[in-house]
Amino acid sequence: MQQRTVFFVSDSTGITAESLGHLLAHFPEVKFRQFRYPFIDSIQKIEGVLQRIAQAREEDGVRPVIMMTLVDPDYRALVKQADALCLDMFGAIIDPLSAELNMQPSLGVGISHGVLGHSYHERMDAINFSLGHDDGQTNHGLDEAQVILIGVSRCGKTPTSLYLAMQFGIKAANYPLIPEDFERMTLPSILDKYPEKLYGLTIQPERLHSVRSERRPDSFYASLANCKEEVRLAESLMERAHVPWIDSTSRSIEELSTTILQKIKVKQYA
Amino acid sequence: MQQRTVFFVSDSTGITAESLGHLLAHFPEVKFRQFRYPFIDSIQKIEGVLQRIAQAREEDGVRPVIMMTLVDPDYRALVKQADALCLDMFGAIIDPLSAELNMQPSLGVGISHGVLGHSYHERMDAINFSLGHDDGQTNHGLDEAQVILIGVSRCGKTPTSLYLAMQFGIKAANYPLIPEDFERMTLPSILDKYPEKLYGLTIQPERLHSVRSERRPDSFYASLANCKEEVRLAESLMERAHVPWIDSTSRSIEELSTTILQKIKVKQYA
Repeated sequence: MQQRTVFFVSDSTGITAESLGHLLAHFPEVKFRQFRYPFIDSIQKIEGVLQRIAQAREEDGVRPVIMMTLVDPDYRALVKQADALCLDMFGAIIDPLSAELNMQPSLGVGISHGVLGHSYHERMDAINFSLGHDDGQTNHGLDEAQVILIGVSRCGKTPTSLYLAMQFGIKAANYPLIPEDFERMTLPSILDKYPEKLYGLTIQPERLHSVRSERRPDSFYASLANCKEEVRLAESLMERAHVPWIDSTSRSIEELSTTILQKIKVKQYA
Repeated sequence: MQQRTVFFVSDSTGITAESLGHLLAHFPEVKFRQFRYPFIDSIQKIEGVLQRIAQAREEDGVRPVIMMTLVDPDYRALVKQADALCLDMFGAIIDPLSAELNMQPSLGVGISHGVLGHSYHERMDAINFSLGHDDGQTNHGLDEAQVILIGVSRCGKTPTSLYLAMQFGIKAANYPLIPEDFERMTLPSILDKYPEKLYGLTIQPERLHSVRSERRPDSFYASLANCKEEVRLAESLMERAHVPWIDSTSRSIEELSTTILQKIKVKQYA
């Protein structure tokens, strides 16, 4: 198997550069060793990284890959001299943008912290909201929720709610569907007020059995028979209540969140 | 103020394309209207987006900007025909990588879901760990923590712990510093076992006063005098205990997390 070393070099957190590293998955036959070098904002640090790159070049016998988001043109020029494939994100995006807008970029380091325009405080508020409205722990303030996720215990509601809050600044509550709901075969009545905010998650019973068994091995709660029954009843309840739902089993939190967000966006802006 | 419309077009979640949108902040004098088009994976959807782009072109009187991560070469070619500045991330990264590796990219859509090689389940485990070890709620399992954040109440420990878990798959616990600790002027004794895992957060008293006042207005807890005193004592306690710390006041969660991660990495891999 071919091996390559990849360096993410940034004068800020490197999270933008690193997110591009996801694209490496399009070369599944290559084993990528990945190193992050955030806050590279002095000539000494640039030189340190260049040494590390030269060392990897020697060790691997092939050129390393560099993904860099450096603002300073001098530093960019220095890194480009390395014997490596240098993917300059600033060059690939800022330079053409600068030409298109007919405007010089501001060269402040690390000036880009918002997520799609959501301010830091909006995101903090959303995270606190989602934590406070996890697992149906309070009905107080549900009016403020932008989405309410429902589903059986341990189907992925909590991480999805938190991701919606952290990545998109969305106030996401979540509410478990429990045996009492299945006996009545109606949603918890508090949710009746918010039909347009509801989104369901479901999961394959085998996967649910495995997740629950980690927490409570050999319990009725975790048994495959009970997981099958709960999932069947939850899906039929959501169907009956006209709540859209999605299977979390083989989807990443990013996919789940984006899918849900599309639905909310439609409601908000259509 | 100049206005431009930006389209993030992806056949997957669009989160990679969107993270590049952070770079738009280097043009602070331009107002960017941003639209996300995830899951664009059929010719019908491509055509829908192209219509929307043409419409923005007309409304704005200037060319829109497109940031796209589309795998399918035919779809990419179609989008590039739009009257817009088209920044093709797949082209800017995958094509040069393909040449460098002398290998065709796998064209599966949405195959890149890991975060720096952390699997979905590692991230889920880390999120559950961080939620379960928020605010010192249990000492059980602290051995497993990779980092333990400490600091006064409401200084940013919870969102930072969750971000470390979600973005990097790091098991991050957090522990509040409370008046009892300041009376003794020693850290909670449970933490003595983990000196190498500790990282402190601090905050400017004025900001802390404002954050706490939202939750408990006019309380002693939220008063500026008490905030000043708690912050002073917490910093002096961390100093005395040789715990490195960072001020959260004007830093994003991304910056805080990356800084902390650098310290952990040193401990783990040096």
